[in-house]
Amino acid sequence: MQELLPTEQAIFDQLKQNISDVYHHYGFLNIETPIIERTEVLLAKAGGDTEKQIYMVSKTDESADSADQALRFDHTVPLARYVAEHNNDLVFPFQVTQINRNFRGERAQRGRFREFYQCDCDIIGREKLPITYDAKVIACIHDALKTFNLPEMKIRISNRKVLAGFLTAIDATDKATEISGIIDHAEKVPLEKSREALEALQLSADQIEKIIAFMFTKGDFATIEAKLTEILGNLDTVREGLDELKEVFDILNAKEGMSDIEIDFMIIRGLDYYTGTVYETFLKDYREIGSISSGGRYENLANNFTEQKFPGVGGSIGLTRLFFVLKETGLLNMTSAKPVDYVILPITKNEFAACMKLADKLRATGKNVDIDFSERKLGDKFNRAGKIANFAIVVGETEASSQKFVAKNLETGETIEL
Amino acid sequence: MQELLPTEQAIFDQLKQNISDVYHHYGFLNIETPIIERTEVLLAKAGGDTEKQIYMVSKTDESADSADQALRFDHTVPLARYVAEHNNDLVFPFQVTQINRNFRGERAQRGRFREFYQCDCDIIGREKLPITYDAKVIACIHDALKTFNLPEMKIRISNRKVLAGFLTAIDATDKATEISGIIDHAEKVPLEKSREALEALQLSADQIEKIIAFMFTKGDFATIEAKLTEILGNLDTVREGLDELKEVFDILNAKEGMSDIEIDFMIIRGLDYYTGTVYETFLKDYREIGSISSGGRYENLANNFTEQKFPGVGGSIGLTRLFFVLKETGLLNMTSAKPVDYVILPITKNEFAACMKLADKLRATGKNVDIDFSERKLGDKFNRAGKIANFAIVVGETEASSQKFVAKNLETGETIEL
Repeated sequence: MQELLPTEQAIFDQLKQNISDVYHHYGFLNIETPIIERTEVLLAKAGGDTEKQIYMVSKTDESADSADQALRFDHTVPLARYVAEHNNDLVFPFQVTQINRNFRGERAQRGRFREFYQCDCDIIGREKLPITYDAKVIACIHDALKTFNLPEMKIRISNRKVLAGFLTAIDATDKATEISGIIDHAEKVPLEKSREALEALQLSADQIEKIIAFMFTKGDFATIEAKLTEILGNLDTVREGLDELKEVFDILNAKEGMSDIEIDFMIIRGLDYYTGTVYETFLKDYREIGSISSGGRYENLANNFTEQKFPGVGGSIGLTRLFFVLKETGLLNMTSAKPVDYVILPITKNEFAACMKLADKLRATGKNVDIDFSERKLGDKFNRAGKIANFAIVVGETEASSQKFVAKNLETGETIEL
Repeated sequence: MQELLPTEQAIFDQLKQNISDVYHHYGFLNIETPIIERTEVLLAKAGGDTEKQIYMVSKTDESADSADQALRFDHTVPLARYVAEHNNDLVFPFQVTQINRNFRGERAQRGRFREFYQCDCDIIGREKLPITYDAKVIACIHDALKTFNLPEMKIRISNRKVLAGFLTAIDATDKATEISGIIDHAEKVPLEKSREALEALQLSADQIEKIIAFMFTKGDFATIEAKLTEILGNLDTVREGLDELKEVFDILNAKEGMSDIEIDFMIIRGLDYYTGTVYETFLKDYREIGSISSGGRYENLANNFTEQKFPGVGGSIGLTRLFFVLKETGLLNMTSAKPVDYVILPITKNEFAACMKLADKLRATGKNVDIDFSERKLGDKFNRAGKIANFAIVVGETEASSQKFVAKNLETGETIEL
């Protein structure tokens, strides 16, 4: 689990606040679901590794067998339960954000934590949800990441309907799951490995060449349309996916201050769940960091909990891991912001009252103000102040009576009259 | 567990943010300890009911017997572990805030939740910590509560050293625990019950009358000093406690905008843990709500984890319970603030681009702006907007080309040119 010292925590909190602010500026509404959820709710969608990683919860005075509660491992399953339960009281399209901790008992790895913040935003429709919202989610998360002042970003976007239509065109839908898995994995292995994996599926040489050509198809919309035509002869089966992709791509490209966007069919985002738009975000010059945010469109959020159809689109920033890798890579400015603006240093007890009045005045302007009431030497007090604050204000008899105060910049030594 | 709808959640979030802002304005630094903690750490200080209420945690693929982890039940125990572990990297006095969820498997009761937010602030010294900091914590939490715009508050304050000195003076220190318990409980039972309980301790009639006179001693400092002199003859044994009480009382009384403060020896705050200042906050005309914030001074925060001495003073707002009781009592203004400022309503798809530009401009000024891309009728869109937002802006061909926009107040119907 990650535990930070206060000055690092202040940076983490600022990044979290930035994300929250941007999500709210985009009109997303915050909710908080319980961290402890009924196990049957969590297991409705979990499976494989996730299921093994679930933390079960039991009271000390209960037998562990009765443990029908567990810690949530993501925000999506509780959101599905929330929407199914409260849909009569919600306003659709329901634009919702959850910024909170989730829990997975993963094997300890660098940058992987068992308690981690995920900053999700999702838009849920009732029955249907226009594709425009896919662009909105991606734009919103992009703007949130822009507040981090990171090096150049690149968004790689695809649409699972194009892959589905492509497999129909080459008559390989019966092996869709395996082929998707191979494409999803392709970036992490040499091309020969992917080719061998495709050969093992007993696809024809022509099918294999087409799949390989497909997965290396990337660029702007005109480029990928031309390339797909070249591979498939016509675009009939992929038309719907391409139309959606074009709309999302065009909206994002028209947005001021947008980072580079590339259509890239190697983006799959796992095997289940997503059904349309999928995307990942990278730092151009730091590809080794991996995706810093991702998401996509799902046809039916809450099918485990209700007959009603709730299509949605969402994305997430895995803030705990991102904070860790940015710190490691030197992309966080860890020294700039101090959490306290002013520390007031009374010379003697006689100035306490004046210090408290001054502090209240500065606080009323939104400043963070500490008063050092300790009995240490002034030098030690300055030393302490320098570690947490930007300015120190010494208050002796003169300052208290004249009500004239001087703030000293603890970095530069400059002084300012207040 | 409490789960709120988005508009209520927005109010809860605002209250939480207000508390956090004030704590930060007072120079407190935020930390976040893990929610999952080693059981031995949690059990070091827990006992009795608390121990029974602890949620144990185990991975699905582990036997429950190996469950050496549990969910924290308060912020104090993890803080003690944090200070013992990181004290070389901390700045003392360490002013720390924790605003987060804790977990107790309590029997379900109205207003008692198993997952609940506690908003703590603590000041930890190394070896010693001047009494002035006790006043600082109380002032800070008071100012945080003032942002709630509640009816008149009253702070009731005592000092455990006065009680200890009082019991020395009447020669009853051997029954200190039992007597403290009786005083702690006195407000909830008729006086006769307290008297009977004291009689059962085989105290003399004189001792009993003095204890009863003591526990009804309240008022300003001069009043309680006079009353104590009357009961005890002299103030030798209670002098240290009275001096501390006077300093805290005087500082708080000198503070501008401070609520009523009363010294009240019936305030005990449980039997262990606190060693000096103790306080509770009430709403004068809503005593049935109980204490809305409390805290006090403890001699040694981390004695279970280190030989070093870390005296501290802290206080807490139990926000989840407070939110619940304020809502029930009608003291939360649940209708005022809408979480979204503007919803933009495009007439057709042709205006999407203009809407997105307008939204980005408004967001840049800090506003929360939603765009309704759904394909519903304008009336339905207005209806949705009214539930989450303060203003709607309709954008048709005219508005898009002229770049002149009108915002309609969804409450009053008034319109404003932007």
